[in-house]
Amino acid sequence: MSRVLVESELSYEVREPSNLVFSVTAAHTSHQHPERESLDLQPDCGFTEARIGLAENRIVRTQAESGPFSLRYRAAVQLDAKTERPEDLLESLFADLPNDTLPYLNPSRYCPSDLLAEFAQREFGKTDRGHVRVEAICRWVHEHIAYRHGVTDAHSDACDVLIGRAGVCRDFAHVGISLCRALGMPARYVAGYAVGLEPPDFHGFFEVFLAGDWYLFDATRLAPRGGFVRIGTGRDAADCSFATIIGSAELKTIAVSANPIDGDEGGAVDPSTPLSTA
Amino acid sequence: MSRVLVESELSYEVREPSNLVFSVTAAHTSHQHPERESLDLQPDCGFTEARIGLAENRIVRTQAESGPFSLRYRAAVQLDAKTERPEDLLESLFADLPNDTLPYLNPSRYCPSDLLAEFAQREFGKTDRGHVRVEAICRWVHEHIAYRHGVTDAHSDACDVLIGRAGVCRDFAHVGISLCRALGMPARYVAGYAVGLEPPDFHGFFEVFLAGDWYLFDATRLAPRGGFVRIGTGRDAADCSFATIIGSAELKTIAVSANPIDGDEGGAVDPSTPLSTA
Amino acid sequence: MSRVLVESELSYEVREPSNLVFSVTAAHTSHQHPERESLDLQPDCGFTEARIGLAENRIVRTQAESGPFSLRYRAAVQLDAKTERPEDLLESLFADLPNDTLPYLNPSRYCPSDLLAEFAQREFGKTDRGHVRVEAICRWVHEHIAYRHGVTDAHSDACDVLIGRAGVCRDFAHVGISLCRALGMPARYVAGYAVGLEPPDFHGFFEVFLAGDWYLFDATRLAPRGGFVRIGTGRDAADCSFATIIGSAELKTIAVSANPIDGDEGGAVDPSTPLSTA
Amino acid sequence: MSRVLVESELSYEVREPSNLVFSVTAAHTSHQHPERESLDLQPDCGFTEARIGLAENRIVRTQAESGPFSLRYRAAVQLDAKTERPEDLLESLFADLPNDTLPYLNPSRYCPSDLLAEFAQREFGKTDRGHVRVEAICRWVHEHIAYRHGVTDAHSDACDVLIGRAGVCRDFAHVGISLCRALGMPARYVAGYAVGLEPPDFHGFFEVFLAGDWYLFDATRLAPRGGFVRIGTGRDAADCSFATIIGSAELKTIAVSANPIDGDEGGAVDPSTPLSTA
Repeated sequence: MSRVLVESELSYEVREPSNLVFSVTAAHTSHQHPERESLDLQPDCGFTEARIGLAENRIVRTQAESGPFSLRYRAAVQLDAKTERPEDLLESLFADLPNDTLPYLNPSRYCPSDLLAEFAQREFGKTDRGHVRVEAICRWVHEHIAYRHGVTDAHSDACDVLIGRAGVCRDFAHVGISLCRALGMPARYVAGYAVGLEPPDFHGFFEVFLAGDWYLFDATRLAPRGGFVRIGTGRDAADCSFATIIGSAELKTIAVSANPIDGDEGGAVDPSTPLSTA
Repeated sequence: MSRVLVESELSYEVREPSNLVFSVTAAHTSHQHPERESLDLQPDCGFTEARIGLAENRIVRTQAESGPFSLRYRAAVQLDAKTERPEDLLESLFADLPNDTLPYLNPSRYCPSDLLAEFAQREFGKTDRGHVRVEAICRWVHEHIAYRHGVTDAHSDACDVLIGRAGVCRDFAHVGISLCRALGMPARYVAGYAVGLEPPDFHGFFEVFLAGDWYLFDATRLAPRGGFVRIGTGRDAADCSFATIIGSAELKTIAVSANPIDGDEGGAVDPSTPLSTA
Repeated sequence: MSRVLVESELSYEVREPSNLVFSVTAAHTSHQHPERESLDLQPDCGFTEARIGLAENRIVRTQAESGPFSLRYRAAVQLDAKTERPEDLLESLFADLPNDTLPYLNPSRYCPSDLLAEFAQREFGKTDRGHVRVEAICRWVHEHIAYRHGVTDAHSDACDVLIGRAGVCRDFAHVGISLCRALGMPARYVAGYAVGLEPPDFHGFFEVFLAGDWYLFDATRLAPRGGFVRIGTGRDAADCSFATIIGSAELKTIAVSANPIDGDEGGAVDPSTPLSTA
Repeated sequence: MSRVLVESELSYEVREPSNLVFSVTAAHTSHQHPERESLDLQPDCGFTEARIGLAENRIVRTQAESGPFSLRYRAAVQLDAKTERPEDLLESLFADLPNDTLPYLNPSRYCPSDLLAEFAQREFGKTDRGHVRVEAICRWVHEHIAYRHGVTDAHSDACDVLIGRAGVCRDFAHVGISLCRALGMPARYVAGYAVGLEPPDFHGFFEVFLAGDWYLFDATRLAPRGGFVRIGTGRDAADCSFATIIGSAELKTIAVSANPIDGDEGGAVDPSTPLSTA
């Protein structure tokens, strides 16, 4: 059990009356409990909170007039991730997969897993099934893909990244998800905050369904999973934009942080220990 | 109000013990009521019915041993589509879009609408908004894309189809959906049966959210919308496979039919009349 | 007949001993005659001039040590383009195409014409053949694609541009070439200088083989064809890079100009008059 | 020195008067000498032989009326491949690359090497340069890509193959060429006959420029390089179609063979011995 203080502040110059949808608030799950949340909009134009999509992600909808606009979110998030022993996490047989995991086997915009069946089989088909296989995928991604800004963009899918061999956190997650799905493992995207991420920013990682639960993975290895705070969950990054603007607004500044309260930063969890916060 | 008798029979040679998921049963909506349904599996290996995904599509899960396997579904489906006048169907303002329509604005595997923003603006940006604009999109698709088998396959997305300029019903739907989303209209895929389709087969069409409801469109013009019977709804065809095999089974025969009971075949509805069955 | 003064100056910071290949010198053709050429390298590291590729493009090869490096080219180019009447320019029958035009029917890196057969037939299959059809293609490209920097990059091919509907001169040329090849007309890329281009820069346009000769086209309409000065010719822009660096060098400044000598700027030629400088 | 008897017979049903271009005749190079060639067309409609493209490939152009049409080619080809020791084949420095090899560094339709710079560096950047590096690429291709018909088609490029991880000889060659170019080695496609290929068919392999000459490679390992007979050379398969039909003709039968005369089948050359026939 640990607590993380997450904060994000986004400021915009709005050019015409616009609708804005934000996905920056911490999710409520059985292993993650946001407390003492505050959400301030300047000017104070009011907002609606809603839950959308398969995973019922929290979003904030608002409308802003022309001029400066900013959003500031702050919460203390209590995390009590469930840990397991790797050897206990076998892949679920298809017949045992719960109905609500099945949509996460389908290909999606940035995770065209239908194209990667042979690729996944040839690289990981002989690896033992279960947690060890997802770890092998993460290792492969980490070793074969360079973490580098400016190579990919918002249109890049996992195949582009596998060819270009470079990308950022969302690209790493998309590749991991695609390979897992291609092997028959439900996998999904998680957007969130991450303690220890340098430079501080929102982060993208992924979850795989193993032995009855969703487990967290991050092929970037840029921050300890124990300090991940989930914002939203989706098929891929298309479901988890931090901000969607309908109209015209320019992002001027963004500041994101995630810091352990009481000094714990999730580092107590060994990198190879399976961890679930779903 | 009309009634349609839908039937489908799929037979397989199963090569190894396999899991099978079928999506062939008619959906229950406020405008569509399946009655006197029967579902027979041979051999009678038992099955589970479930609801999955955003649209809570009905699926049938079963497991088959090696050998011949067949499924036969039959239902009388009562349809009482809601019709509207085209001029009453304006596009919803973003601020008025219900939360549950928002996921259908996101790009998906076969509908990469994020790539088509400029395309959609240049072709349809000056068209009046609302139903008339979706009609313009359908007309464009009908005029610019050849209906032809064998050009596209299960991996083809809307951009492939816009380049290759040929495809089948699912491709037509994917292009329509992509262009609508690129213009800010929630749009989704519908798989189903269609009275009058020649040769008889499952059909793919699409729905767009306008003025508070989902309306049916079909750029193929191969069958009257009044005779469409919905099976499932999704972001694109990836969410609506008629059959998914985990294991190994070869489809040997497939027979699909949809016939009006009492002679009505939906033809009474003018092709340009907006129609909702969601 | 007119004369154009072309100049280009490129300066680099070379980071390690590098090989550099430049393609900035004006081509010699039966309708284009460079005179009083000068090519200065600083430091004066010597260079080799060579002819490469199908079109025997002139290139300059050199090797530079670490430090500042610059190239300055200057020439007075005499142009006496051949003009024809549009109605006299019919498409050559395949049987009449000279052997050396055949390679320009093949798809190339940025012009995947093999994917555009149906597209080209549906859009231009009913247009009269010959010069009028290429004009129709140029008009279509001009009307359907936005001239805009920052959307495409060095990896974008004609299909990307047809989907994204925006690009720069090389993209416009690639689309034109691809559609012509898809219709059976040999077509190729031309890189060069252009009088009247704003802002001044290198330019990319294209040539199509009609009635026994290569004719110039430019769907961007950014400068009069009468003021185009050819540097190189190729299947697409891959054959016509202005500069290729093997090693490491950063482009610091680039200045390109093309100005009529004696006041003529090719404007005397009507935009619809077929023009050949090959 | 060895001699190979090559034969090919293609028969068509021509549906409308058509132009046909064939590329089936053995090339003349300093290491390959076709003798006693015969080329029969039925009906005997006459033909023109020509040389086209960068590599001056031999082609046969003819015109056929509606009805049956067949071509039969036969030749005894004398091969005296040059062999070298692997350790003597270092990569040429860029400064030492002859001008006529430079076009084979450019990306082409099926070999988009510009997309594979990081891929090639990460996989082969630390391998010793020269013949050993091309061997490493061939080994990688052989191990990572399945030889399988029906997965790729005439539109598949090297990136499609690297994602789909399956293909036929032309796909293997395209991947090899792309990776070599991405590393700065001129590489090109070779189409030809191959002794020992099962089932007999035309074959596609590739050449890389090393230490002053072009050397043969074949990542499929389906036949000994000593029995390869070159038909044509190009940037990729787009330059080396065996038959191009302008009009309408259906291929009815195709028979291709390559057999050693006097029992030698090129097997005397060790698979790891560098071999040049350019």
